[in-house]
Amino acid sequence: MAKKEFSAIPLGGVGEIGALNMMAYECDGDMILVDAGVSFPDDWCPGADMVIPDITYVLDNIDRLKAIFITHVHLDHVGALQYLWEEMPVPVYCTGFAKLFIKDQVSQTLGNDLPNDIIAVDAGEKVKLGAFELEFARVVHSVPETSGLFIRTAYGNVFHTGDYKFDDNPEIPEDKYDTEHLEALAKEGVMALLSDSTNVFADGHTKSDTELAESLEKMIVECKGRVVLTTFASNMGRVRLAMRLAEKTGRKVAVLGHSLKKMIRYSKECGYLSKELTKNIIDIEEAHKLEDASVMVLITGSQGEPRAALARISRGEHPLCEAKPTDTFILSSLIVPGNELAVNRVANRLAKLGARVVSKNDGFVHISGHGYVEDLKRMYQLMKPDLVIPVHGEYQHFVRNCQVARDAGVKQTAILENGDKIIFSDEFDIKKDYAPTGRHYVDGLNIVDEDQFIFSERRKLAQTGAAFVTVPVEEATGHIIGRPIVKTKGLLDESLQADLVDQVADQALLALIKGFDNKKITDPRKAEEMMRIAVRNAFERERGRKPITIATVMMV
Amino acid sequence: MAKKEFSAIPLGGVGEIGALNMMAYECDGDMILVDAGVSFPDDWCPGADMVIPDITYVLDNIDRLKAIFITHVHLDHVGALQYLWEEMPVPVYCTGFAKLFIKDQVSQTLGNDLPNDIIAVDAGEKVKLGAFELEFARVVHSVPETSGLFIRTAYGNVFHTGDYKFDDNPEIPEDKYDTEHLEALAKEGVMALLSDSTNVFADGHTKSDTELAESLEKMIVECKGRVVLTTFASNMGRVRLAMRLAEKTGRKVAVLGHSLKKMIRYSKECGYLSKELTKNIIDIEEAHKLEDASVMVLITGSQGEPRAALARISRGEHPLCEAKPTDTFILSSLIVPGNELAVNRVANRLAKLGARVVSKNDGFVHISGHGYVEDLKRMYQLMKPDLVIPVHGEYQHFVRNCQVARDAGVKQTAILENGDKIIFSDEFDIKKDYAPTGRHYVDGLNIVDEDQFIFSERRKLAQTGAAFVTVPVEEATGHIIGRPIVKTKGLLDESLQADLVDQVADQALLALIKGFDNKKITDPRKAEEMMRIAVRNAFERERGRKPITIATVMMV
Repeated sequence: MAKKEFSAIPLGGVGEIGALNMMAYECDGDMILVDAGVSFPDDWCPGADMVIPDITYVLDNIDRLKAIFITHVHLDHVGALQYLWEEMPVPVYCTGFAKLFIKDQVSQTLGNDLPNDIIAVDAGEKVKLGAFELEFARVVHSVPETSGLFIRTAYGNVFHTGDYKFDDNPEIPEDKYDTEHLEALAKEGVMALLSDSTNVFADGHTKSDTELAESLEKMIVECKGRVVLTTFASNMGRVRLAMRLAEKTGRKVAVLGHSLKKMIRYSKECGYLSKELTKNIIDIEEAHKLEDASVMVLITGSQGEPRAALARISRGEHPLCEAKPTDTFILSSLIVPGNELAVNRVANRLAKLGARVVSKNDGFVHISGHGYVEDLKRMYQLMKPDLVIPVHGEYQHFVRNCQVARDAGVKQTAILENGDKIIFSDEFDIKKDYAPTGRHYVDGLNIVDEDQFIFSERRKLAQTGAAFVTVPVEEATGHIIGRPIVKTKGLLDESLQADLVDQVADQALLALIKGFDNKKITDPRKAEEMMRIAVRNAFERERGRKPITIATVMMV
Repeated sequence: MAKKEFSAIPLGGVGEIGALNMMAYECDGDMILVDAGVSFPDDWCPGADMVIPDITYVLDNIDRLKAIFITHVHLDHVGALQYLWEEMPVPVYCTGFAKLFIKDQVSQTLGNDLPNDIIAVDAGEKVKLGAFELEFARVVHSVPETSGLFIRTAYGNVFHTGDYKFDDNPEIPEDKYDTEHLEALAKEGVMALLSDSTNVFADGHTKSDTELAESLEKMIVECKGRVVLTTFASNMGRVRLAMRLAEKTGRKVAVLGHSLKKMIRYSKECGYLSKELTKNIIDIEEAHKLEDASVMVLITGSQGEPRAALARISRGEHPLCEAKPTDTFILSSLIVPGNELAVNRVANRLAKLGARVVSKNDGFVHISGHGYVEDLKRMYQLMKPDLVIPVHGEYQHFVRNCQVARDAGVKQTAILENGDKIIFSDEFDIKKDYAPTGRHYVDGLNIVDEDQFIFSERRKLAQTGAAFVTVPVEEATGHIIGRPIVKTKGLLDESLQADLVDQVADQALLALIKGFDNKKITDPRKAEEMMRIAVRNAFERERGRKPITIATVMMV
């Protein structure tokens, strides 16, 4: 029984920044998804490889799902596809550049036999799917071909901005805002606009790539030695800018890092890097033969990731590149909250080697891909929506973004949480907690949900270590026929503390003797529980730690 | 054989910010320590309670140690005393306010029978200890009575600034810089000055408390409901400012949080809170009877600590105080790097409850206690040292601070790492890695060093979970007399996956049968290793995770 209405349900990504983006739109029984992002697991779920959205709602309605649209190829928008696509085998729509990326990315998990097609569509191309007509519209962000999605229905139109900012002169001109296109869409009427909220606490406008170019050029001209520049591999505008400045200042470019090389390949294929620029790329071995002042090295690892090029160079562990005291390292990216300490470690190691490190602490080396307050207002004034729904932010960002929208003349605003359903109409209606949502964890070969006790057990193991105690019992008589054996992990050095281990084993034995008449183990489960408690208490007395303990009565 | 020289060795706190501060000064065989700070353990050492400096060098020379001087009562300067004082039973010198704090703090671990005296000395009082003459000089920071230490020897004088900034009008006037005192000390000649480097990346001057007072007053006057203000409990200047503004704007003050109440008690005792101000304090129950506009609540938890008042109120779990939509929460403190996510969670929860949250994102609500570049220069120009040694910073801060010192006209600068020894003379001399240093961990009742494998085992336990396998073997014959039993923690739900557990047990048995001729277990250690590997491999195949595994052959 398809409901006759047009609605949206955020299945992830609302209430946090840069994580799990996934929005379900439904109209007259047809459903599309916009984006399928991952998040990175935190300490609360130790050992997990990746976080993905709970798609129970989609699976319960899988026959109604028509397609998945990907706005751009950042992992918080596309990274979950490789884990979820098999369960939702519908076509994926994206731009040409994104198609190259997604194909490589999903095949890591799914191999080359993909569940369905990846269909490249250009901005302005109309895709008719059931009750929807969809159309990408180009916005500016920090990866090529980032697109908002214009969603037409019989009930009215919604503009899903995706991540965006305004830059009238971006480094990649093809990535410029198509104002005419957006104005034309606005004229059709926008009943609701879902907007990025990331930088709503930053006043003013984001700066332009042309301003950054000036700053970086000045910096590079002043470098007497090598320039080593790092940014997000996907930030092809930044990479192109660096390569252009290298050519302009007489430097050859060497590239280190797989993801960077891959992104450069896609960009070449899509025409975002000219032949002149790519001809200027040389192997790092060749670069070593040149004067330092003729070399720029582009590397991965801007977030201090321990295995990426930057961190390995800082530790003197990169097989192909060593830091020199005359090097200037330019960290041309934001530092994602949570990565500050890792980036600091890298910067301090490089400083100790005598190299100069320039980060956003020290100069103008980066522009955000997310609009500031005035960018948001410009979007609202351009698209003239009746309703603004802030997404891609925390709750406090949403409160602020609603204020920004009202300041920009928008009449209505609404805040959604994951799982809420908003039905679009003149008087929009929100049904709280309509769909189940949550964080699922890729853990080795399994996907487990956040309430799984395995994570709480792992957290406890990490806090206290583990102990094992086992005792042999004669099945026929119930007699204990050997001393308990105690072993530990993450608790103490058993070779040095054999006495302590013996003492704990004695306590376990004592508990059994006290607990059972005539020393007959009549109830092995009860005996295990007694030993478990005895071992935990004994370690607490001696070490101040109650380890997670497994007790086994071995009946023989 | 006491060396005839004057030297310093950082035993902790150099190369990082806000952690493990401890400096050893030695002169002609006499030694003093300045500060004894802790750090908080990170993920690398799960389960540890606290990090303290390795004092091997001091213990190896304990007969030469005369005293410990504490510059101020932040935990990164004093928190390790309670763990280390028993091993170094010398007097502790500090100011009167610090004495109150330290007595309470160390008795948590040591009880009331302290290892030696806590001796309160005022700024300007001279303490003669062996080859040293020591004198505290008042500086401005963010806790009352913060002091630098002037160290006189026959070789010349060193000024150890401790943490500092300049404020010519601090909220607590007694905490003002004593310029005359410092100038007089400078006239005696300063061969070396060891300076705080925390804010060396911030240009200009720190602002004054009088400027902050204006901003906060404006904010409070505009609040129609309650004002709930949080800051570090030790920041008594901020607490006093809040209390003064409360009185001025007709609000009674209720205080929530033990550490805050304790600090207020010390401050009353030392005369930093007037009778008028303390008379304005009421119980929270009384506050609930007043109009909201007549109430200010001072609470702990500015870093989003889950058990402190702010976080509990945000979760609706505080027994004495509930957030109201008309409340304004003022987070009047910095957010320590690493705590951003916790503070964000709190702010978002409060925003959802409808309350207004004002943090440093939103307005001028905090001033740092650490000097900016111009504060540092002012110190250098005031004290005119021959040599500046930056401390209390990371390596990159030191590089920058050396530049700042040279810009301020200082001729010589030197960068030390923990364990380096600097011998003060006209041509100072640095002996690298002179003393052992490192991080020791308070772990329950034990103190373990950072290389202890228990932390690496805990990290692995957290990543993969634990498995336990045991099998009974007849001692007389070597025959396996029962099936292996497999149990796990943090790996899977055994009740749901009994089949998998059985299968893994089969693999363990198979490994034994394959590994030993005639199925006779001739070597129990070898059998355990075979089972361990079989279990790990079986779980890797089935779950993609190789758990930490303990195998036991139970000989009966």
